[in-house]
Amino acid sequence: MPHIDLPKEYPGVRSLFVYRPETAAPLNALVQTLLHNPHPSLSPGERELIATYVSSLNTCKYCATVHGAIAKHHLKNADIVSAVKIDPDQADISDKLKALLKIAAKVQLGGKEVKPSDVDAARKEGATDIEIHDTVLIAATFCMFNRYVDGLATWAPDDPEVYDRMGKQRAEEGYLTPPFKVQPN
Amino acid sequence: MPHIDLPKEYPGVRSLFVYRPETAAPLNALVQTLLHNPHPSLSPGERELIATYVSSLNTCKYCATVHGAIAKHHLKNADIVSAVKIDPDQADISDKLKALLKIAAKVQLGGKEVKPSDVDAARKEGATDIEIHDTVLIAATFCMFNRYVDGLATWAPDDPEVYDRMGKQRAEEGYLTPPFKVQPN
Repeated sequence: MPHIDLPKEYPGVRSLFVYRPETAAPLNALVQTLLHNPHPSLSPGERELIATYVSSLNTCKYCATVHGAIAKHHLKNADIVSAVKIDPDQADISDKLKALLKIAAKVQLGGKEVKPSDVDAARKEGATDIEIHDTVLIAATFCMFNRYVDGLATWAPDDPEVYDRMGKQRAEEGYLTPPFKVQPN
Repeated sequence: MPHIDLPKEYPGVRSLFVYRPETAAPLNALVQTLLHNPHPSLSPGERELIATYVSSLNTCKYCATVHGAIAKHHLKNADIVSAVKIDPDQADISDKLKALLKIAAKVQLGGKEVKPSDVDAARKEGATDIEIHDTVLIAATFCMFNRYVDGLATWAPDDPEVYDRMGKQRAEEGYLTPPFKVQPN
């Protein structure tokens, strides 16, 4: 049960966005920019994989499953999402993305865990400054969202179909359209 | 040395805001809403203390020192800021704020660390839903900023006077005005 009185028909961060629209606006603008808007070189699917992986490391069921579903819709591939959650090194992704995901995993532990050698390894695979920047900020952002969603004990659906519908909505529309209700109110 | 090529005349998150204005806009809108705009019951000084405490737990020198300076300017009291960083229970703050800072410390460890008993303890001291919500989100937000600032190895000034000037600026102006340069470019 959530720690505060939230609208029951919305799960996870959706219930928090409806509860507090003043903070929902900049939070949605942030993920729209980081994950959905055009990027010089990282596809939306690649950026959603970073969000999914960090949420998985933080064992945030809601965020890991929704962003995994968004990534799946962008990439048209569910296997890559499952593989990244288990071990990015075994996933069918570029060596550059593998190196960026290693940086993301360090950020999940703490900012100071990112060492020059991690950044050098990513650069050797062709990573640019903006890719390194955005990887760190996406990872940090999901360390925020995961704590927000679980710190207030929001509920997470069990039905994979619900996540698939939410994933399809966000992959197609981005983050600036209102969330649909998952349960009748 | 920062992991990517950032404008040297700005320290900490300021260098990142100048480097990437697309993400700076929603990030500054978020802290403006959470920390500076009018709140039903938590003063800007109290909210800055939550940000300072979490940044201190994350050992983020830049964020802990800047937000400590902002809190000091709001509260007109440096002793409270120093005491909160060491042990909030010994600080000259309300029992309600002490209970909210305990929730913030749980969020710093991970969202699932916040237990119903932590929330009940805050409610017993008079905490409202919106105060519990904003405490969790402020704590989560600084788990993001601390990782962003340290994950890209931004530089942090050593001179306390520099933090005091930055703290005065943000306490007076909020977060929507451009940062001043700390060093000549």
